[in-house]
Amino acid sequence: MFGTGLTAKAVIHLLRSAGFHIEALWGRTEEEACELASDLNIPFYTCHIDDVLINKQVHLVCINSPPFLHSQIAVKTLSIGKNVLCERPAGLGFDDTLRMLNAAKYYPSLMSLMTYHLRFLPTFTEMKKRISSDYIGKILVIEVRVHSGVSLDLHYDWSHDSRMGGGVLSSFGGHFVDVINFISGQKATHVHGFMTTFQKHTPKVSGFREITSDDFCTFQMKMTGGACCTCVLNNNVPGEFSYEVLAIGTKGCLIAKNGRLHGQLKSDNPSILGERELIEQDNHKHPDGFETLFPCEVLEQIPVVLCQGMVKFIEALKLSFSKDDDCRKWDKAALMNAATFDDALYVQSVLESIKLSSKTSVWEKVNMLLFSY
Amino acid sequence: MFGTGLTAKAVIHLLRSAGFHIEALWGRTEEEACELASDLNIPFYTCHIDDVLINKQVHLVCINSPPFLHSQIAVKTLSIGKNVLCERPAGLGFDDTLRMLNAAKYYPSLMSLMTYHLRFLPTFTEMKKRISSDYIGKILVIEVRVHSGVSLDLHYDWSHDSRMGGGVLSSFGGHFVDVINFISGQKATHVHGFMTTFQKHTPKVSGFREITSDDFCTFQMKMTGGACCTCVLNNNVPGEFSYEVLAIGTKGCLIAKNGRLHGQLKSDNPSILGERELIEQDNHKHPDGFETLFPCEVLEQIPVVLCQGMVKFIEALKLSFSKDDDCRKWDKAALMNAATFDDALYVQSVLESIKLSSKTSVWEKVNMLLFSY
Repeated sequence: MFGTGLTAKAVIHLLRSAGFHIEALWGRTEEEACELASDLNIPFYTCHIDDVLINKQVHLVCINSPPFLHSQIAVKTLSIGKNVLCERPAGLGFDDTLRMLNAAKYYPSLMSLMTYHLRFLPTFTEMKKRISSDYIGKILVIEVRVHSGVSLDLHYDWSHDSRMGGGVLSSFGGHFVDVINFISGQKATHVHGFMTTFQKHTPKVSGFREITSDDFCTFQMKMTGGACCTCVLNNNVPGEFSYEVLAIGTKGCLIAKNGRLHGQLKSDNPSILGERELIEQDNHKHPDGFETLFPCEVLEQIPVVLCQGMVKFIEALKLSFSKDDDCRKWDKAALMNAATFDDALYVQSVLESIKLSSKTSVWEKVNMLLFSY
Repeated sequence: MFGTGLTAKAVIHLLRSAGFHIEALWGRTEEEACELASDLNIPFYTCHIDDVLINKQVHLVCINSPPFLHSQIAVKTLSIGKNVLCERPAGLGFDDTLRMLNAAKYYPSLMSLMTYHLRFLPTFTEMKKRISSDYIGKILVIEVRVHSGVSLDLHYDWSHDSRMGGGVLSSFGGHFVDVINFISGQKATHVHGFMTTFQKHTPKVSGFREITSDDFCTFQMKMTGGACCTCVLNNNVPGEFSYEVLAIGTKGCLIAKNGRLHGQLKSDNPSILGERELIEQDNHKHPDGFETLFPCEVLEQIPVVLCQGMVKFIEALKLSFSKDDDCRKWDKAALMNAATFDDALYVQSVLESIKLSSKTSVWEKVNMLLFSY
């Protein structure tokens, strides 16, 4: 496991619950690594990347480090011949993600997956299925809204810096750009974005230091299949994390909102309003054990939806590894729906274009030379 | 009363319920006017504008005609010395609205109001009050979402044509651009818009004729006070008309959603989520008598919120006229919150800039020479 932050802690817990053994932990400093390792009883810890990678007990590497290190660790892991799960692309740019993708293509038998968890939620899996089977007809519009008021009162770190991968667009936007592609099968060709930072200071980030990572972002995407997409990500809304993904087609619509999927079809008689039907429901509680793992104020701010997606992903991961006694071997079928580094490159291109558009104030083309539409 | 459409019918009914007498009706054709006049027992009908204006029984003129006639009728009414209520600005452009404004300024003692009803809903009045009294602190973001699936199966008319004032931006957008200005006291300086028409044909509009009025529009506004605004208007969503206006400030947020106003303040302790408090509630039923006035399939598609706003506006109008026996005289205080032609010019400028931006694909400056910021 690479990383000592909140997500790393949660992932370690979930992997263990699923029956995986955590053999080694890497932290940016010896102290960080030591602290979490003794807290969670991990037998080995280090601040040297290679020490984890060459460890013979390690067969699968999970990267949840600060985003700017992801690419370096992922490429090293693959070249040493081990499977890799990466939390999200670099946030530093396209080139790093491209390097990861090239490594993944060079070692096709190794696992190289992004942990974009939303795909694994029953609601989004069902949404994809219904859209493929023409339930809502041709997709016209996809509207996404993500509201949160996360204010973990942290000392200044990478998450406050837009250049280091912080901000709502990188942290939440990526998940939703990915899930839009997943459910619709369409990719963005042009994007328009507007990002800003309203809360530049917190009690612990004050004085000359300023938060540069965006806490508000709205973007629009024109998609390959003719659909339009409009998204709002807003981290200034007090209250629990909430999200809504609304796909509207010629025949009706599907709404995934806070763990529930509803569908509504247009009636042949326009004067009769159809009923909204509950189609699928996700588990909307925090995973078992989280309440003892995190203090209450942290727990309240962890988006349940992302945790439940992670749980589902790790279930599929376990299944994938359980088919063979050799713990380096895995079954691709069980992870068919997982996001690949190819998907990550697409998401990264879209995020880069949105950031660029927010600077240039015009619609930007998504760099699409590198992945197939 | 100018107009024979749905809104005109609704307004006549509401004015009568409040105790006003409808003395004369104008329609675009003699037949249209005759039909509605006999249907609603209106003593006089015509297709000549002047015949209504010179009628001595007429003291207040209500304009609910096709939008491209609004300016002409409003200017004539004022110059003949009568009070005027106008449904919404021309939709044809700025110049027409400017002509109306000039006439209104020339006759300051005459009533010249826009029937932007949302301002009169208790939820929005309360929202304005709370924002002015610093309940949510400095406004950061306003998010607006309007969903509808209106599909009155009409033969081709002005509402299908973008150049004639049709489309979601003109018909719903104007109301919400106005209400944002009303509640926040801020005006847009720059806008970015994206509009499109997904449903180009209906059973009754087919063949060579095509609907050009937008059924989907998303726009962003940068406001004078530093707030950002993002709006989605979507007429492709099956189900009832629904809207949400969310104002987020440094201290908390206010949410007006389908007739209910909720507030949520940030807690001093970021780990404690505040509760959403119900602050105000509008009547959410159709006005009395509507069920006999309109067939069920039409009634279902009339946005209750706009009707209830209209009811509240007409109540204030009645109060304003009831203070004096001379039925030409009116009390300004009762209509203090009403939208003036000045407000209409602002809304019109914003809508024009959004349309322009949708064509040029860049942020457009709102023409602000003509009204005071």
